[in-house]
Amino acid sequence: MAEELKELREQLIARQQKIRDAKIPILVLVEGWAAAGKGSLIKELISEMDPRFYNVVSPVITPESAARYPFLYPYATAIPENGKVIFLDSGWMESCVRKILSHEITRSEYKRRVRQVNEFERQLRDGGYIVLKLFLDIDRKEQRERLLALRENPDTEWRVTEEDLWQHREYKRFRDAYEEFMKDTEEAASWHMLDGSKRKAAVQEALSLLVKKMDHVLKEGRYNGDPFEEEFPLKKMPRLAEVDLSPCLPEEEYKKELKKLQNRLSELHNVIYRKKIPVIICYEGWDAAGKGGNIRRIAYPLDPRGFDVMPIASPEPHELARQYLWRFWTRLPRTGHITIFDRTWYGRVMVERLEGFCTEKDWQRAYNEINEFERQLTDWGAVVLKFWIHIDQDTQLARFTDRQNTPEKQWKITDEDWRNREKWPQYEIAVDEMLQKTSTENAPWVIIESNDKKYARIKALRVLIKALEKACDQKLEKDMDD
Amino acid sequence: MAEELKELREQLIARQQKIRDAKIPILVLVEGWAAAGKGSLIKELISEMDPRFYNVVSPVITPESAARYPFLYPYATAIPENGKVIFLDSGWMESCVRKILSHEITRSEYKRRVRQVNEFERQLRDGGYIVLKLFLDIDRKEQRERLLALRENPDTEWRVTEEDLWQHREYKRFRDAYEEFMKDTEEAASWHMLDGSKRKAAVQEALSLLVKKMDHVLKEGRYNGDPFEEEFPLKKMPRLAEVDLSPCLPEEEYKKELKKLQNRLSELHNVIYRKKIPVIICYEGWDAAGKGGNIRRIAYPLDPRGFDVMPIASPEPHELARQYLWRFWTRLPRTGHITIFDRTWYGRVMVERLEGFCTEKDWQRAYNEINEFERQLTDWGAVVLKFWIHIDQDTQLARFTDRQNTPEKQWKITDEDWRNREKWPQYEIAVDEMLQKTSTENAPWVIIESNDKKYARIKALRVLIKALEKACDQKLEKDMDD
Repeated sequence: MAEELKELREQLIARQQKIRDAKIPILVLVEGWAAAGKGSLIKELISEMDPRFYNVVSPVITPESAARYPFLYPYATAIPENGKVIFLDSGWMESCVRKILSHEITRSEYKRRVRQVNEFERQLRDGGYIVLKLFLDIDRKEQRERLLALRENPDTEWRVTEEDLWQHREYKRFRDAYEEFMKDTEEAASWHMLDGSKRKAAVQEALSLLVKKMDHVLKEGRYNGDPFEEEFPLKKMPRLAEVDLSPCLPEEEYKKELKKLQNRLSELHNVIYRKKIPVIICYEGWDAAGKGGNIRRIAYPLDPRGFDVMPIASPEPHELARQYLWRFWTRLPRTGHITIFDRTWYGRVMVERLEGFCTEKDWQRAYNEINEFERQLTDWGAVVLKFWIHIDQDTQLARFTDRQNTPEKQWKITDEDWRNREKWPQYEIAVDEMLQKTSTENAPWVIIESNDKKYARIKALRVLIKALEKACDQKLEKDMDD
Repeated sequence: MAEELKELREQLIARQQKIRDAKIPILVLVEGWAAAGKGSLIKELISEMDPRFYNVVSPVITPESAARYPFLYPYATAIPENGKVIFLDSGWMESCVRKILSHEITRSEYKRRVRQVNEFERQLRDGGYIVLKLFLDIDRKEQRERLLALRENPDTEWRVTEEDLWQHREYKRFRDAYEEFMKDTEEAASWHMLDGSKRKAAVQEALSLLVKKMDHVLKEGRYNGDPFEEEFPLKKMPRLAEVDLSPCLPEEEYKKELKKLQNRLSELHNVIYRKKIPVIICYEGWDAAGKGGNIRRIAYPLDPRGFDVMPIASPEPHELARQYLWRFWTRLPRTGHITIFDRTWYGRVMVERLEGFCTEKDWQRAYNEINEFERQLTDWGAVVLKFWIHIDQDTQLARFTDRQNTPEKQWKITDEDWRNREKWPQYEIAVDEMLQKTSTENAPWVIIESNDKKYARIKALRVLIKALEKACDQKLEKDMDD
């Protein structure tokens, strides 16, 4: 057996560089019983690997981070970059199962989480990730002996936690819950049971599974999942061409309304802070539509300690090297905070689609993936609002020309803006499709007519205030109901 | 006054793009009394700014992060990138003053922190940062009225914390402590007192200071500080040419020792975890010296949940856009954890020096900056060990040739390795200088003779074990003593 193990290790090493060259990211989830030897298993798996090739992550789920971010946050922010392996020392399974058995979450929340796990794993798989899920199994007797041995040694005594003892007492309930969870999460990546009582055999099996997965992808190429459409309840959206852009607002009325609405928003910021409601405001729109000025009018009344504006430019190399939603997961607000995204994940179905920065399958899959992502956010309790700041081509030309001719504004206009302008018709097709497919009930698009910027600012403020008021009213109900 | 304010705002806006183009990073620290209006001040400062240009950071110092990272960690990881402004809503001043007044830190720890603050600010300044420090002042009567007003309104009641009331009761002690702190931290960036009772005037003054600082840098160019040498207690190091590379170890003895030492290291990992000692192990050395294999022998006995290997490659764009130590601050271990750096911040005085990736002043300044950085780490309680893995040119050639001729190893050798080899003499000069100037008593260099890799691994393990044993013994004493 030592021979076989050695050979498997060599096979793994031999594939390291190929996986790196092929830019394949690998996530190995190691779940299992307390004292089953998860740590030791990982230790054996990495023992000969090049440290530049892997990372071991034990998601530190402090009460703070667990309470202030969505359930998947610690895992979605920890995914590997292309060509690297991440070993997760217990993850979303453990956190679902423990929470339901300790009654920290309700049955319906548990079901939502199972759905989110399936979505998460599928999105990774479809994006070309290898996802290997291992469960290290030991029976109750074996666990008892190991826990006792750990407790008897003063050096290792501290490793046995109250939670571990609780698990041991409730071994049967845990077993049923683990089994149920595994059955429910086989969709995108299947589970592999390893016998934790036979350490060497477990290592060998894990290595062999990993090598097999690597070989499969090295032979077949990075997987690129087919698009499919889940049914989301959608709001009917007009085509851009049908939008009436004539609304405008006289200066006088604008000033009065602005002040009134900003005061109201300022009050509401206090309430959402206290009620711990996270708020995500997305801005998309044509170049020179007035996104910046609109954002500033919303930001002005907010307490700067409670919000962030996230300008989204082209992805940096370390962002490009991961699933495209990663750079948005890492920028989410905490509960009670507001994040305003100046451009968003919708770049996937606009610029990335049109410029060929991703494959056709990639952007076609994205509508569904984004709907899922946003549902995960609203399930968490977030208000998700999406503004399309809309102007017509004539208005854009006038604003471009003004920028060109005004020295202080020249930095705002680049050759790229002019090039994008030429692609207006293609963009319009993409935007129309995006609005039709992603304006869900829970995270709707709102078209903001912005030929008159003053009208646009007032409308955005009104829509936002209404959404926040609704959320504040419902929060109490939701907390009681779940 | 409204006119002047408007004009200042316009001046600020007009400079935004220039600051961006000149890649100048700006840190504005806003400190002051509770209820002095720090939030409102920041709000006014950013109100017309392009959101892509600034961020507001309220360092969330949870008990967890404060206890598990060095004092400067929340600030050092939050510094702006080139061309951006960060507004820090209270920072290192508040955290020093509160901690000393509440007796959470000793007087000697307070003094260490003041020194660290001066080092931190100077390093930023010397690296071309604008550091603007504001203190928003109100008298006791004004504070009382504001706290009362906040508490009377149910919407803002929660904003008045127990800590604020404590500050109000102890107003005089706080005033003295603030004054002392300000006096002690004028070295690198001076303090500006703003009268918080005159809101508009305060905004106006802050804006005017900011514009003035911007203009100065835009005119004079990014500051690049002169090198200077503080006296650190240094360990005498041999020149590389004097190192005897003949030591070697027979296979038999190697295997026996390796097992014994790895077992001991594994035990010690438990102890440092329990005693919450952070450990930082730095690897530098010639190409093909055997760093990777050496690291693996140290990593093998460690619990994978308690350590990370950080391979350091060329900096990514978002890392290049910040002070060079930033990407190491963000990779520090928590207390009780081990981080092994495969290459380190010493790139500054080796590859960056030789390839001209930084100015001469930059790398000359770095010896002192690095000594300070490492003293901040050891002051925090970290074990900092630095290994220079050493071989001679013949051994390197033999290993390069072997890599070239062995198909499974070819990926390990690149044209760059051959190019670097040609620069051996220049590198040797740089390494000798580095070893002389940065082998401090608290964070010494250890030369690991690695012509025989087995000998090298055993030596590194021995040195590490000795350092950890010493730290575990001393920890108790230090805790009692401070």
